[in-house]
Parts: sequence; structure tokens; C-alpha cells
Amino acid sequence: MQRWKCVISYDGTGFAGYQVQQDQRTVQEEIEKVLKAMHKGEAVRIHGSGRTDASVHAEGQVIHFDSPLNIPPERWPTALNAKLPPDIVVKHAEKVEPNFHSRFDVVSKEYRYHILRTPQRNVFQRHYAYYYPLPLDLPAMQKAAGHLVGTHDFTAFCSARSEVEDKVRTIYELEIVEEADKLVLRFVGNGFLYNMVRILTGTLLEVGRGKIKPDELPSILEQRDRSRSGDTAPGHGLYLWQVNYNN
Amino acid sequence: MQRWKCVISYDGTGFAGYQVQQDQRTVQEEIEKVLKAMHKGEAVRIHGSGRTDASVHAEGQVIHFDSPLNIPPERWPTALNAKLPPDIVVKHAEKVEPNFHSRFDVVSKEYRYHILRTPQRNVFQRHYAYYYPLPLDLPAMQKAAGHLVGTHDFTAFCSARSEVEDKVRTIYELEIVEEADKLVLRFVGNGFLYNMVRILTGTLLEVGRGKIKPDELPSILEQRDRSRSGDTAPGHGLYLWQVNYNN
Repeated sequence: MQRWKCVISYDGTGFAGYQVQQDQRTVQEEIEKVLKAMHKGEAVRIHGSGRTDASVHAEGQVIHFDSPLNIPPERWPTALNAKLPPDIVVKHAEKVEPNFHSRFDVVSKEYRYHILRTPQRNVFQRHYAYYYPLPLDLPAMQKAAGHLVGTHDFTAFCSARSEVEDKVRTIYELEIVEEADKLVLRFVGNGFLYNMVRILTGTLLEVGRGKIKPDELPSILEQRDRSRSGDTAPGHGLYLWQVNYNN
Repeated sequence: MQRWKCVISYDGTGFAGYQVQQDQRTVQEEIEKVLKAMHKGEAVRIHGSGRTDASVHAEGQVIHFDSPLNIPPERWPTALNAKLPPDIVVKHAEKVEPNFHSRFDVVSKEYRYHILRTPQRNVFQRHYAYYYPLPLDLPAMQKAAGHLVGTHDFTAFCSARSEVEDKVRTIYELEIVEEADKLVLRFVGNGFLYNMVRILTGTLLEVGRGKIKPDELPSILEQRDRSRSGDTAPGHGLYLWQVNYNN
């Protein structure tokens, strides 16, 4: 038995999310179906670094699984990609120690949120960026972002549906950069709560619109009050960009 | 009655093509449906600069139509876009003379063909570029492209289903440029025959693979022999990029 770590990418548009759900098309189920076929009908369970929601994309999600098949690392992507649907691709595979775990061993994660700023909507971007053409105060958003970096209790920026107890997380980087027609928000942290990146994005957009002042952020964090933070930005602008491990 | 010229863009993925076809979803039908609703149930016929096939995209298709409605030019896109499906957008509208015709008055057209060159397929590009990872001899392709520029009988590069008699066309520009992960083929000409850009692309790819020598192009053109030119490249890599008129 060998444990394998794979980096995968998927277009979230056609999925109810990463994690298996009854009667829904999910990324996990599509991959497990292919692995099962490769293992003569034997079920192979995959473990992801975390879930992503419906319509959320992945540029670099990480999964692991165990297999008795003697396939060299460079052949795994080809073998899996030949059977996977066109909206999932395995980018890389490598052998890992039997105690490696794609979720528990995460050191940091990067998410990106893409906001489209063109005067008119773009038909080719409709599933891949949140179309938000209103004027935005970028320096105000950057100032607010500065208040979010660091170790905080992010209860105010987390869905009420979250089931974790400890809501303290560390954001290492929160960059807001203009890239051609887009505003890209880059979040790097040791972990993110349920809907946290989307609520942070929605809040930063309200800062950009002048509805929340940058200097209100410390008190919103402190009061842990979800009603003072912004709306949850839509899923289709969000990308799980990269998952980092030691080594 | 005022004649209007509009520049439109559409994602060809969900369409059987531009032109109305029984029981198929088409760009023309979707736009005419919206115009009919805006004109209290009165049918408004639109005229495009030309058809595009199933899965072919448009960055700048041009249409015209006549309307008695007194809507200022800058309001037409907003009014139409509010009712159009998310895969069609009106980018621009302007008043034109009553004798303007989107097809007959075309001076030149630009098509672009996008070829994706990444080591692995990209889930986000699967409908928007032709994935072709094999090595290509770019200088050979560029040399072949040089033979295609100018006025020629393009019978060898035209679908047998073409119904036009005169197959002489002029290509003003044929550029092949590397843009990030893509190879972009840019075709500017006074007109293009049915499937001509896709067959030219397929032929240039065979030149890139060494199956056709660049200097065979003049004799392929001269012999008007479709069997010597390349395969028809898939529709989803093709964009009607711009249509040019006098003024």
C-alpha cells in the first residue's frame, strides 16, 4: 500500500461542491468513481485538504489516498485524467509517507477571489469572476485589509453554520491587486472558517463602497458580531489556489 | 423607424450557432425574443455580419435591426442586457443610416483562434481554447502563414458544404503569436468561406507538426484540393473578434 498526494484543479460550476452529497454531483465522488474503476471495483476513499462549496473553483486543491497499484508518480495524472470528466484535472502526483494527511498536515492555504471590473458584463467570465462594476475606494480596502492580517478571532467573518469551536485563525497575507480587468484578493492563512473568505471579500467590498470604514474593522473583529460584517460574496469568484505543507 | 447597429459578444458553448434553427438554441433567436418583448409582441428581425457555428464564440459580432422605439444609443445595451441570457451581451449600440447592412457593408473581419499549450489540460479553458500540447515548429507555421496572406482562391480551405461560387478571398494579416500559455492565430481578411479559419488553423497545425511543409502551401492553394489541407480545427477555439465597416 502506498499513500499518494495529488494536486487537482476543478471548475466548480458544475458541482454541488467538493464533498460527497447524496444525489448531487461532487468532485470527491467523480474522483472516487475513477479510482474504483482503476482498482477493479474496490472502493478507494480520497481525503481533501478541506471542502469547497458549490460553484467554488480550485486551482490547487490537495487530496490523498492509498493504493496498492504500482504506477510511477508521473503516470498517475495521465491515468486519472484519461477517465476524469473535463471539469476535473489532476496536475501532479507524488508518493508520501503513510502518515501524511492532506487536511491535518496543512501549514497554510491560499485562496483568491476574482472581481470583474469591466463596464459591461463579460460572457466568458460569468462563471469565473464576480461581476462588480461599481466604483471602489481601493486604498480604503487596502487599509481595511491591513487590520485583518494577523491572529484574530474571526467569529464575525464566519457563517453561522460553522461547527468549529475555535474561531481563532491567522491571516499571513491579504493582498488586493489590480490585474487587467480584475481586482484580485489574495488570502494566505493557516486556515479559514466556513465562508470566511467570501465574508471577508463582501466586507472589503462594503469598505470599498464607503459603507464600512477601514478603522471599524478592529471593533468588528473584537465584538465577534456577524451582523456588522459584509454579505457573503458569491462562490463563483472564489478559487482555492494553493495548499502548503512542510517540505 | 431607426436602424441600429450593435456590437455583441457571446459564449458559443451553449448555442447551436448564431443563426436561427428549428428546435435549437441560437444567438439570433435569443436576441429576437428580447426585441419582440420590448416591441409589445411585434417581431423584430436582426441581421448579423455572418453566421458562426455551434461552440464558436464572438468577442465582436455585429448585428443591425430597425426599431420605432425612441431609446438613446447609450441606453440600448442596458435595456437589452437586462433581458438577455448571461451568455450574450450587447457591448455597444449606435444609430446608422437606413441603408446600412451588417453583412453587405463589411470591409474586413478579424477572427482569432486560441490554442492552449499547457502541459496538462486546463479545466477553465476547456470551452475557450483548443488544447493542443504537442510540440510545434512555430517558424515553419509562420512561414506557411506568409504564403496564405494575399488574394487567393481558397477552395482548398473551405468546407464542401459551402454554397458560395466565388472562393477568392483576400487575407490582409495572418499573425501567429505566443500569449502566455496560448498560441493565438489572428486572421484579418475581406471575408472568410465556410469553415475557412478552422481549416487554415488545422493546416497550420499540421505544418507545425512537420506533416505539411510550408512551401507546399502555394501548390495546395493552386490545386484547390481540400484533401491536401489539414483537418478542421474544433469550433470552441474560434472567436469572431471584430467586424470592420467604413467609418
